[in-house]
Amino acid sequence: MSAYSQLCKIASEISIIESLGAAVDWDQETGMPGDAISFRSRQQAWLSGKAHSLFTSKRFLALLDRCEAAADGLGEVERANVRVWRRQTNRATRLPKKLVETFASTCSKAKGAWVAARQNNDYLAFKPHLERILGLLHEKAERWGYTTEPYDALIDEYEPGAKAALLANLFDTLKPALRDIAKQAVQLSQAVPASLLEGDCPVERQQILNREVAESVGFDFNAGRIDTTAHPFCTRLGPRDVRLTTRYDVRDFTSSLFGVLHEAGHGMYEQGLHADDYGLPSGTAVSLGIHESQSRLWENHVGRSRAFWDRWLPRAAELFPHLAKLNLDDFLRAVNRAEFSFIRVEADEATYDLHILLRFTLERRLLNGELRCDELPDAWNDEFHALFGTTPPDYKRGCLQDIHWSMGALGYFPTYTLGNLNAAQLFHHAMQDAAIAHSAGLASYEPLLTWLRQKIHRPGSTLAPLDLMKAATGEPTTHLWHLEHLRNRFLS
Amino acid sequence: MSAYSQLCKIASEISIIESLGAAVDWDQETGMPGDAISFRSRQQAWLSGKAHSLFTSKRFLALLDRCEAAADGLGEVERANVRVWRRQTNRATRLPKKLVETFASTCSKAKGAWVAARQNNDYLAFKPHLERILGLLHEKAERWGYTTEPYDALIDEYEPGAKAALLANLFDTLKPALRDIAKQAVQLSQAVPASLLEGDCPVERQQILNREVAESVGFDFNAGRIDTTAHPFCTRLGPRDVRLTTRYDVRDFTSSLFGVLHEAGHGMYEQGLHADDYGLPSGTAVSLGIHESQSRLWENHVGRSRAFWDRWLPRAAELFPHLAKLNLDDFLRAVNRAEFSFIRVEADEATYDLHILLRFTLERRLLNGELRCDELPDAWNDEFHALFGTTPPDYKRGCLQDIHWSMGALGYFPTYTLGNLNAAQLFHHAMQDAAIAHSAGLASYEPLLTWLRQKIHRPGSTLAPLDLMKAATGEPTTHLWHLEHLRNRFLS
Repeated sequence: MSAYSQLCKIASEISIIESLGAAVDWDQETGMPGDAISFRSRQQAWLSGKAHSLFTSKRFLALLDRCEAAADGLGEVERANVRVWRRQTNRATRLPKKLVETFASTCSKAKGAWVAARQNNDYLAFKPHLERILGLLHEKAERWGYTTEPYDALIDEYEPGAKAALLANLFDTLKPALRDIAKQAVQLSQAVPASLLEGDCPVERQQILNREVAESVGFDFNAGRIDTTAHPFCTRLGPRDVRLTTRYDVRDFTSSLFGVLHEAGHGMYEQGLHADDYGLPSGTAVSLGIHESQSRLWENHVGRSRAFWDRWLPRAAELFPHLAKLNLDDFLRAVNRAEFSFIRVEADEATYDLHILLRFTLERRLLNGELRCDELPDAWNDEFHALFGTTPPDYKRGCLQDIHWSMGALGYFPTYTLGNLNAAQLFHHAMQDAAIAHSAGLASYEPLLTWLRQKIHRPGSTLAPLDLMKAATGEPTTHLWHLEHLRNRFLS
Repeated sequence: MSAYSQLCKIASEISIIESLGAAVDWDQETGMPGDAISFRSRQQAWLSGKAHSLFTSKRFLALLDRCEAAADGLGEVERANVRVWRRQTNRATRLPKKLVETFASTCSKAKGAWVAARQNNDYLAFKPHLERILGLLHEKAERWGYTTEPYDALIDEYEPGAKAALLANLFDTLKPALRDIAKQAVQLSQAVPASLLEGDCPVERQQILNREVAESVGFDFNAGRIDTTAHPFCTRLGPRDVRLTTRYDVRDFTSSLFGVLHEAGHGMYEQGLHADDYGLPSGTAVSLGIHESQSRLWENHVGRSRAFWDRWLPRAAELFPHLAKLNLDDFLRAVNRAEFSFIRVEADEATYDLHILLRFTLERRLLNGELRCDELPDAWNDEFHALFGTTPPDYKRGCLQDIHWSMGALGYFPTYTLGNLNAAQLFHHAMQDAAIAHSAGLASYEPLLTWLRQKIHRPGSTLAPLDLMKAATGEPTTHLWHLEHLRNRFLS
């Protein structure tokens, strides 16, 4: 067997192990009995240990050496897989086991402390945990290595190849335009009452509509399903097994429906990856910024469009008769209402990225040593005021609102805005194809999905995110199309 | 670390692997998307391989040798664990890998063939599969070894220590009495209309009652839950994680409720095992005949009793108003109605064991070479006629009705009747305790469950089934109490 085939065999075993982890993780979120948690942690630890030791084994590394030495004999996809494996094993082998374990247990404690601190609005109770996490993240960044600043080493975990300095430029360009759009959008939306869509929305009826819509945009229920959780997510348990989750607001069906469109966007990306390459980089999603482009595209560009509701509003009104009183214009104004919110996860399209810009700035300053943890709450409030013109009334609605930092996930937030930019860019370029645009105008999305499959899903991780965007659209990720989209949607 | 502690460490790793298998198995039954099946098989094969190679490793066997050589230094439980491990590794190491794989793939094909054969009422399509399975079972029995007849080697998988000759004696004693009781019970039940309980039973209301009842008899929902499947079962995914399933008849709530009581009986056994000994024989259920005693005790001795419905009928009538027209006597007659059925899984308490006797006789004759596969359908019908006085109209309702043989599970059926005998015996002896009987008379079962925990659950597999029954009740498994129970219930 060739060295490359042997690598694939080990990778396939790792993928089985990781898929088992995904399966029990999914179970933990969807309905595991409470007392099962401690054994579940032991299962996860065993699986992580097994996968890690296979991936960083002398055998795997030696096989990588052999493939690199004989790379000429490999095809393009094979070479890409070897390249990604090398990058990933470099990262994995550079962290000593002790650091990985300390980081895991520190974050586990920090997560518990964060839940309590947020509940009690008590930043000081969380601060020492954040300090410990930052210390460990510094150590990780030093071991992983970086050229310019530690942030680069961390974001690479979520968005391979991204650089803080470039992101900062991009976000600096976005900032004034986003503030301007947000301000105007919120003002214009004041004419739309917040309660316009409210009425009786029984869960079973929402489930009917969610399924019809997810199926119609192309989510494959033979290879997936939808369950209920407090925090919606999408996960893949195998090459043909994608699980979405949602939650229900019994007064407003759109909350769950847009959530399902969002998760189905993630899910169709996973379903569009080469099943035969499951467990190989070529069969794996490339980055969070690309993943989020798929969810945001289906949620916002498709799901909040006039063509979409021209088709679906009559069906929604059959299931939820109180909607019969709304015409399409009213309805669209309601689902595209903008409003300032202290809370990121409640933010609409017009204001969302401002929340990300704030977090990126603060994370980078924390990691560069320009901001101390005891200065964080004030810095948050100052930055928030500069962006939104108002100050959060408490920490719960300020610097304690997100779970990410308690999980040690610094460098994660920018991928949300990258996702928005990529979504707009992909949608814009796809719509240059007359057939895709024509179908989309009739709320029929097979041509669009086919285009995304070919341009974004099929390559897996064989192209870096920016190269993937360039190959798909002719340009690397840019701010232009997202701003144009927001202006068209909210200001025209 | 002592040899014994090292054994426990390996056993604990095996238990993690097996629990992951249980978790994905549960998922497969409760809602896995259809296309996920082939990867799920790969996950299961990987897990089985890992567990098997750890359990039959030279290291594990050498540690067993060392523990046996120094058994004097071990406590009673430790010695029992070593004894069980030895018995199990003997069985596991005596089968060559090739045979295990051939058996698995043969059964996998046979299962598919059986589904089609039953549907088409086509015994000849299933016969070659059954012949292959019997051939492989013979090979397994020879390799496992037996003193008297091959059946003993097979039943040992489900009921350690059971012997076909002793079972035959027991069943011969039971047979005339059971036939007599069944005949009279069916006759007496003719006065009770089959549709007495029928009415509108919405699933959500059944779920409310199921949960209240399961909780009240002692099933712990912090360490368990109930889901929906076509074929109800109970499985344990970890020391504090027991999953029950049920199905619903929207016209008759008792079908699901008695199912839940049955599975909760299995579940409370699992919840009553020492969580700290999870993965050790001392923390594992000992046999199917003991397991079934727990399910049948709660389903039949508790769940179909007057005291139980004296408490629960009013609550049921709140949820299902059509029951208000029934008094307690009518209701009890309806849930204890006897009727001859061709189908085992539809059989009531009075007739159930006759179905088992038939299968045991035929299985034993097949394995002893006294019956050929092409004679099976006639032998089934003759035996059925001798027991029930009627002949199945087709194979679907005859020798093709059960899944067990297609799974290679010969020797399994007798454990159902052993379960019935054990249930009656345990219930009878528990009721000799005045406090337990008094509480049970008020439909309060904590004292009964405490007694079962102590006598049956806590010992795990440290005692063989017959020794366990003897320690709990002063006598090995006997037919007496079951017959007495059936006479009291159906003929008095």
